[in-house]
Amino acid sequence: MTLKDLVYKTRSYRRFNESHHIDTEVLRGLIDLARMSASAANRQPLKYLIFNTHDFCEKVFTSVAWAGYLKEWNGPAPGERPSAYIIILGDKSIAESFSVDHGIAAQSIMLGATEKELGGCMIASIKREALRNDLNIPEKYEILLVLALGKPAETVVTDEIKENNVKYWRDAGDIHHVPKRPLDELIIKV
Amino acid sequence: MTLKDLVYKTRSYRRFNESHHIDTEVLRGLIDLARMSASAANRQPLKYLIFNTHDFCEKVFTSVAWAGYLKEWNGPAPGERPSAYIIILGDKSIAESFSVDHGIAAQSIMLGATEKELGGCMIASIKREALRNDLNIPEKYEILLVLALGKPAETVVTDEIKENNVKYWRDAGDIHHVPKRPLDELIIKV
Repeated sequence: MTLKDLVYKTRSYRRFNESHHIDTEVLRGLIDLARMSASAANRQPLKYLIFNTHDFCEKVFTSVAWAGYLKEWNGPAPGERPSAYIIILGDKSIAESFSVDHGIAAQSIMLGATEKELGGCMIASIKREALRNDLNIPEKYEILLVLALGKPAETVVTDEIKENNVKYWRDAGDIHHVPKRPLDELIIKV
Repeated sequence: MTLKDLVYKTRSYRRFNESHHIDTEVLRGLIDLARMSASAANRQPLKYLIFNTHDFCEKVFTSVAWAGYLKEWNGPAPGERPSAYIIILGDKSIAESFSVDHGIAAQSIMLGATEKELGGCMIASIKREALRNDLNIPEKYEILLVLALGKPAETVVTDEIKENNVKYWRDAGDIHHVPKRPLDELIIKV
């Protein structure tokens, strides 16, 4: 697959076949992609938590917010929830701030998930203290991003944006639509 | 090429064959990869400047810092400088902050560059006001990252980190070494 195909296929998925187990080795392989990606001043301050069992996945599930624009949807129902999570932490004993390291890492991981015919969603809207308490995450780690992962069980398409409205939406056939700005709007001249 | 091969090959390069011209269409294709990558709340607030001519590249060159750990090296000499730059801007009329959107975008772009047999370096250490003045970048755009691009003309290898020393270095044969933390150090248990 070309990188363009991989990037185009890497959409944010929020409904999954929850019965699809994701092996620990697969998750470790995804984190290896993040490990070998760029890090500001090569400090490599990111750490990772892996969860791929039902009980732990439920704990993470209750601490993240789903699809802010879909006001009438409370997130995936039992059976369609993520079957794994990777939590990206910033180790404050290594760096005071984490620049965009976690964005770089997350993109490597999500592209890798697509290549493995998985998918998911980067989530920054996190009940951080609840998650820290539920999982006993030490204070030395800043909770940066939660990556929800699973076998996608929904169709996501991109459309050209209309009237500058960035809100994604679901149509009557339950297809998830994501408006994207056109390339010529993004490349500016000065 | 598998994604793993692509990620492993995507090292930070700082010396190039400057005579290698990078077409505008190639740069637009890289930005299209960023365009189709994830954006917080789908706001898509990033804008991009492209430069692939000598005079403009020299302007950008003077405003970025090179290889902080190589104290005796002032950056690439004429002839080995980047032949293109992409500057990632945050459009403050769209969003107040940019989360890790620019990290996600930069990783898509750098992976795309590798696929095109190019390479480069993400640079956040930027003389922002000088760059803004030299290029007449309006105040509405925050200068987030500079991506230097070119045809790599150096060898970069990764080594396992020793004694927690993250500083990259050059050996007597002018090979650039980057210490990387092992996977088992990054995946923690709580």
